Amino acid sequence: MVRITHAVDFSAAHQLIAPTLSEEENRALFGPCYRLHGHNYRVEATVEGPVESETGMVMNLNDLAGLMRSKIWDHVDHQNLNEDVPFLQGVITTAENLAIAFWNQLEPHRDRFGSARLVSVRVTETPGNHVEYRGESR
Amino acid sequence: MVRITHAVDFSAAHQLIAPTLSEEENRALFGPCYRLHGHNYRVEATVEGPVESETGMVMNLNDLAGLMRSKIWDHVDHQNLNEDVPFLQGVITTAENLAIAFWNQLEPHRDRFGSARLVSVRVTETPGNHVEYRGESR
Amino acid sequence: MVRITHAVDFSAAHQLIAPTLSEEENRALFGPCYRLHGHNYRVEATVEGPVESETGMVMNLNDLAGLMRSKIWDHVDHQNLNEDVPFLQGVITTAENLAIAFWNQLEPHRDRFGSARLVSVRVTETPGNHVEYRGESR
Amino acid sequence: MVRITHAVDFSAAHQLIAPTLSEEENRALFGPCYRLHGHNYRVEATVEGPVESETGMVMNLNDLAGLMRSKIWDHVDHQNLNEDVPFLQGVITTAENLAIAFWNQLEPHRDRFGSARLVSVRVTETPGNHVEYRGESR
Amino acid sequence: MVRITHAVDFSAAHQLIAPTLSEEENRALFGPCYRLHGHNYRVEATVEGPVESETGMVMNLNDLAGLMRSKIWDHVDHQNLNEDVPFLQGVITTAENLAIAFWNQLEPHRDRFGSARLVSVRVTETPGNHVEYRGESR
Amino acid sequence: MVRITHAVDFSAAHQLIAPTLSEEENRALFGPCYRLHGHNYRVEATVEGPVESETGMVMNLNDLAGLMRSKIWDHVDHQNLNEDVPFLQGVITTAENLAIAFWNQLEPHRDRFGSARLVSVRVTETPGNHVEYRGESR
Repeated sequence: MVRITHAVDFSAAHQLIAPTLSEEENRALFGPCYRLHGHNYRVEATVEGPVESETGMVMNLNDLAGLMRSKIWDHVDHQNLNEDVPFLQGVITTAENLAIAFWNQLEPHRDRFGSARLVSVRVTETPGNHVEYRGESR
Repeated sequence: MVRITHAVDFSAAHQLIAPTLSEEENRALFGPCYRLHGHNYRVEATVEGPVESETGMVMNLNDLAGLMRSKIWDHVDHQNLNEDVPFLQGVITTAENLAIAFWNQLEPHRDRFGSARLVSVRVTETPGNHVEYRGESR
Repeated sequence: MVRITHAVDFSAAHQLIAPTLSEEENRALFGPCYRLHGHNYRVEATVEGPVESETGMVMNLNDLAGLMRSKIWDHVDHQNLNEDVPFLQGVITTAENLAIAFWNQLEPHRDRFGSARLVSVRVTETPGNHVEYRGESR
Repeated sequence: MVRITHAVDFSAAHQLIAPTLSEEENRALFGPCYRLHGHNYRVEATVEGPVESETGMVMNLNDLAGLMRSKIWDHVDHQNLNEDVPFLQGVITTAENLAIAFWNQLEPHRDRFGSARLVSVRVTETPGNHVEYRGESR
Repeated sequence: MVRITHAVDFSAAHQLIAPTLSEEENRALFGPCYRLHGHNYRVEATVEGPVESETGMVMNLNDLAGLMRSKIWDHVDHQNLNEDVPFLQGVITTAENLAIAFWNQLEPHRDRFGSARLVSVRVTETPGNHVEYRGESR
Repeated sequence: MVRITHAVDFSAAHQLIAPTLSEEENRALFGPCYRLHGHNYRVEATVEGPVESETGMVMNLNDLAGLMRSKIWDHVDHQNLNEDVPFLQGVITTAENLAIAFWNQLEPHRDRFGSARLVSVRVTETPGNHVEYRGESR
């Protein structure tokens, strides 16, 4: 079993707002992140599987890259994550929730992974902050 | 003469809109940058001067850092550059204009630079794109 | 369950000396690291927990950052790790021991992690060398 | 138990060719990677073990670095991985297969790891693509 | 006047061979670089010009990016620089010569730069080695 | 004329002390840098010259690397810059003074540069702070 990881970068605006909290509570909870701002995000998806002897690959990196582009990048790059992304409607756009949402964008297409499976989605918001989601079963 | 450079990082939202152009012209000119998005920006200010023999310094890095914090970072971090920054009112928020605006935030405080002078402001928008402004006289 | 990681950077001096070994043995064992030198260190703490639906967070990143600042950074930044840090007295300042010591600075404050728990402390000494401690139970 | 990781960098040429496939199939499968090209590779080996109280180390980093140099770096740096490396003869030089081959170069020397054991070999081909192999038993 | 810089990355094979020297002389001169190997290269082009008040730009970054893609990247990515690139025929593929050749690929298209002009091409071969060419007149 | 730059990394301890100032003045001037600490430093030397047609090089990078190793790295790596480096005796170890001192270690060996000449020495102390010295005549 080998793990392969592919990364895509996107730039987006967002702000953290909890709809069940008051403005003051939001401000206290999220601090400056309550204000509209933005990031150069990096998303890394990791799949794990056996190396196929005929190709030497776990899965075709071009396929993984294409899937990440069509299911994630095309929807989020140069967008306001709080407004413009259908699959993020109603989601508080923390890095945690982004990682889960991106997982949910990729995982249903598991047939594209061949004999591999998705094991991790990492979202890096700034060079000093990142999160990782490994799916429900772990 | 030695040059010293200090960097500060901030995260902000912005979008490129030319007020003299129509929506279609803006879209054609700026492409995805016409949409609201954001970046992890880096600003680097470079000052040049003689090394003072008593201190071994061109200027005190803590002073340069403090100036960059109070004149730039405090105004732009976790903000929408198109809306929230007084010194950017009416400015198209390209990296070029940001570099000039940040220069104009620092240069009037040239008395803080001692015998050094500001020679460059660099703004990095993404790892693949940056701009540099060296003032009018160069 | 999602993992979130926050990083803090500090600059410090250190040298590797095993008190039970002779000077020659130390020199042979540690090579140039036996001499006093220093690094720009990075410490990354990772906590794992469920995402709270009301906030979208595993734990407040500002709280994690504050804890890392008060329990680690305030003690080690711009210090000689072999002399100046109470919680490192008598510790050989290898990256391994630093990771364990930093874990021990954070883990007793587990009440600050809410329903999350500390799962990893990583210490990067140079771009080519890092260590990771995951606690006793793993 | 603590994990320590050491990285070495090398520059090499390679191309992806599956010997059981036709030229057209290779071209379709591997795309531009079917052509001879090259990378600045990074290899990271991670070993895990208890911290020896006398030395504060899991294993001597100089020993790990020396092993990686003699068993990997000396064979692959400034080489064509498809032609010049005895231990890669007949191997499709995907990052997956490189990670397995590098593991197999290190793991037989497990006596050099003392009470630690090799737990991971990571190969980074470009800043956006890396693979990780953790041995057979995981 | 403001300078804007755009970077593109490519992966390629190359080797250093001086056709006027013997094999032994080549080996002595170039060392391991005489062998076929490869790199992840970065090319950065810098243009300088006034900021147009209507657009806030020195030149459209998308245009600069497109020019670098069609005139450089399309020819060199995933190629053997010593064999496959028409504009490098007969060129010793040192970073110095690559920088000059890339400048010569861009500069004739100076009409695409509007009122800006090309002032620098930088080629980074490894994180520790880069070269910069600023044209004939400087 | 082309510029080539080579970088070397070293780890060292230092502290900032101005011998003409009192302890309180030093503390006020240098803040935490008055305490013994350390860094992973990067030194970049840039030489400029014509590209020799026979070799395609400004100067042999291996020669530049060797000179930087013997004249700089061998003296400073894993040392206390305030105590252990003969050419830094009596020097306040600011990055400014290090850049000048490293220039003075390289420039007298200008015969090794062939028809090129040293044009810049850059010292990076942390990712956010660097200095550059270009010699007396600039």
